[in-house]
Amino acid sequence: VTPCGTLPGEFELIARYFAPLSKGFEGAYGLLDDAAVVAPGAGCEIVVKTDAVIAGVHFLPDDPAGQVAQKALRVNLSDLAAKGAVPLCYMLDLMLPPATTEDWVAAFAQGLARDQRTFGVHLIGGDTNATPGPLTIAVMALGQVERGRILRRDGARAGDVIFVTGTVGDAVLGLAALDGALPEIDGATAAPLIERYRLPLPRVSIGPRLIGLATASIDISDGLAADLGHICEVSKLAAVVEGPRVPLSSPARRAVGTDRSRLEAVLTGGDDYEILFTAQAEASGSVEALARETGIAITPIGHMRAGPADGVDRVVMLDAAGEPIRPARRGWTHF
Amino acid sequence: VTPCGTLPGEFELIARYFAPLSKGFEGAYGLLDDAAVVAPGAGCEIVVKTDAVIAGVHFLPDDPAGQVAQKALRVNLSDLAAKGAVPLCYMLDLMLPPATTEDWVAAFAQGLARDQRTFGVHLIGGDTNATPGPLTIAVMALGQVERGRILRRDGARAGDVIFVTGTVGDAVLGLAALDGALPEIDGATAAPLIERYRLPLPRVSIGPRLIGLATASIDISDGLAADLGHICEVSKLAAVVEGPRVPLSSPARRAVGTDRSRLEAVLTGGDDYEILFTAQAEASGSVEALARETGIAITPIGHMRAGPADGVDRVVMLDAAGEPIRPARRGWTHF
Repeated sequence: VTPCGTLPGEFELIARYFAPLSKGFEGAYGLLDDAAVVAPGAGCEIVVKTDAVIAGVHFLPDDPAGQVAQKALRVNLSDLAAKGAVPLCYMLDLMLPPATTEDWVAAFAQGLARDQRTFGVHLIGGDTNATPGPLTIAVMALGQVERGRILRRDGARAGDVIFVTGTVGDAVLGLAALDGALPEIDGATAAPLIERYRLPLPRVSIGPRLIGLATASIDISDGLAADLGHICEVSKLAAVVEGPRVPLSSPARRAVGTDRSRLEAVLTGGDDYEILFTAQAEASGSVEALARETGIAITPIGHMRAGPADGVDRVVMLDAAGEPIRPARRGWTHF
Repeated sequence: VTPCGTLPGEFELIARYFAPLSKGFEGAYGLLDDAAVVAPGAGCEIVVKTDAVIAGVHFLPDDPAGQVAQKALRVNLSDLAAKGAVPLCYMLDLMLPPATTEDWVAAFAQGLARDQRTFGVHLIGGDTNATPGPLTIAVMALGQVERGRILRRDGARAGDVIFVTGTVGDAVLGLAALDGALPEIDGATAAPLIERYRLPLPRVSIGPRLIGLATASIDISDGLAADLGHICEVSKLAAVVEGPRVPLSSPARRAVGTDRSRLEAVLTGGDDYEILFTAQAEASGSVEALARETGIAITPIGHMRAGPADGVDRVVMLDAAGEPIRPARRGWTHF
């Protein structure tokens, strides 16, 4: 085993930084037992999701520890939200490289504590290991949903309107800014883009409210085009997205305004963690009301249609002139 | 992202090797959705556990892929068993280094398929990533237990008998054999020890049967002394273990017979994945009956007592002469 020379022992580390995060969740037993108990509420079932993040792959090695923790947790909460589930708790496997300091762990745990308050979840278990490799964080999030009501990818029907929450493309532009690829954009304009890359905003206040409204739902992690493609594939349909209707933040509009080719990155880049869902046209009024109530924009960007005919893309994105945009890549894949 | 040049794409990999492992579990949705649904049976609640394993830390990088998969799964099933839970399903985060071949992934999935049949579980979700670091596998296992009946660490009482399933120390001696530290032991004798190191046997047939019998329970992963110490700590008691009563396999007896100092390794080494539990003396008949029924030895090895007084070890291990054995280290810790 690779020792973490500067860290206190494993049990001390858990007692000092992680056990406090389990307080308030009875079935976590203060992280003093081997497993945790989760009981769904009456009429509910458990929804589970896991996603891992790796330094140098999903985040930058010198990203602030607290934000790394929050991102690792939030990408999982985002999936629960897109499925209509209310998050309950999570487990955490930490693979720490030898250079990890106790200060880093403290800041990491503080990030988790902040998000636990924001999202009403608790840490209920996990595993802490030394690794000779890069910092690796696996989170497993558990939520609950009314029995049989989980929002699936496969329920879309031809004619359904495609909606997206918030704004699209900020994260991919933030990463581009960090890479120095947005040279003409000033720091103040780039800052909120970078913030969105580092700290996704899972739409937990909207997800559970979509039950009864959405016919299919997914969170945008691989990119708008790719994730809409996932809905198309299992719903056995095609989709038309009207590019100009895709909601952009004001800094994203500036970045795209100076270089139209960046629109492609916006439509195919990952890490947005907005909810992309379909609903019948008749539900539009209820969707608008939900947006007003939550204060989060929900924008219609296109519609589902029969298809695909052979050789035609499942997801067709149209530019302002109604011409198809054909991006070189459809979205993020891990290999 | 570090590309895995020899592997098919992420989605193809999932479709080819992992989606088939989800067949038969409705809430896994064929791994075609973002999350899975798990509903506990009537009167039951969900028990969750996660443990990660890293190449070069928890297993040897050239261990057979199928056995690596089985070990990663089994260490988690072992915890569920020790808590009295019936395993249902699991999630899997795979961090694959660049040199990973498709053959390796195929053999890994075959190992999982074998264990799914043995233990009646299904894969319900996960995440596949390329990593620049060592192969890392995080498993989260879910089981169910009758509401409120989970076996905890903290229920032991003074006078309770300490029992252990199977045999102790095989895994640590197997690792020693692999390291060339058992030079006088022939290959045929060492083979079953090495097998136990590579492939733990979670006691899923015994765990759920301990509900109503055991007052406290834990699986031996950190080592007999350390894990018994965990029970002592939360039960606020001390324990006496009679060394000669600790059950050894026949190859372990040979290894300890030629070098008594190896007994220390047996009592403090990890990776046994047997169940260590306490029960009232009056339950001994029922414990014996359970051992007969399951064909798995369950051996009384000591008892719990009040304590600890200051400066006295919580776990006292006695040799054949009744003298305390004082090991240099108490058990496995990750740092």
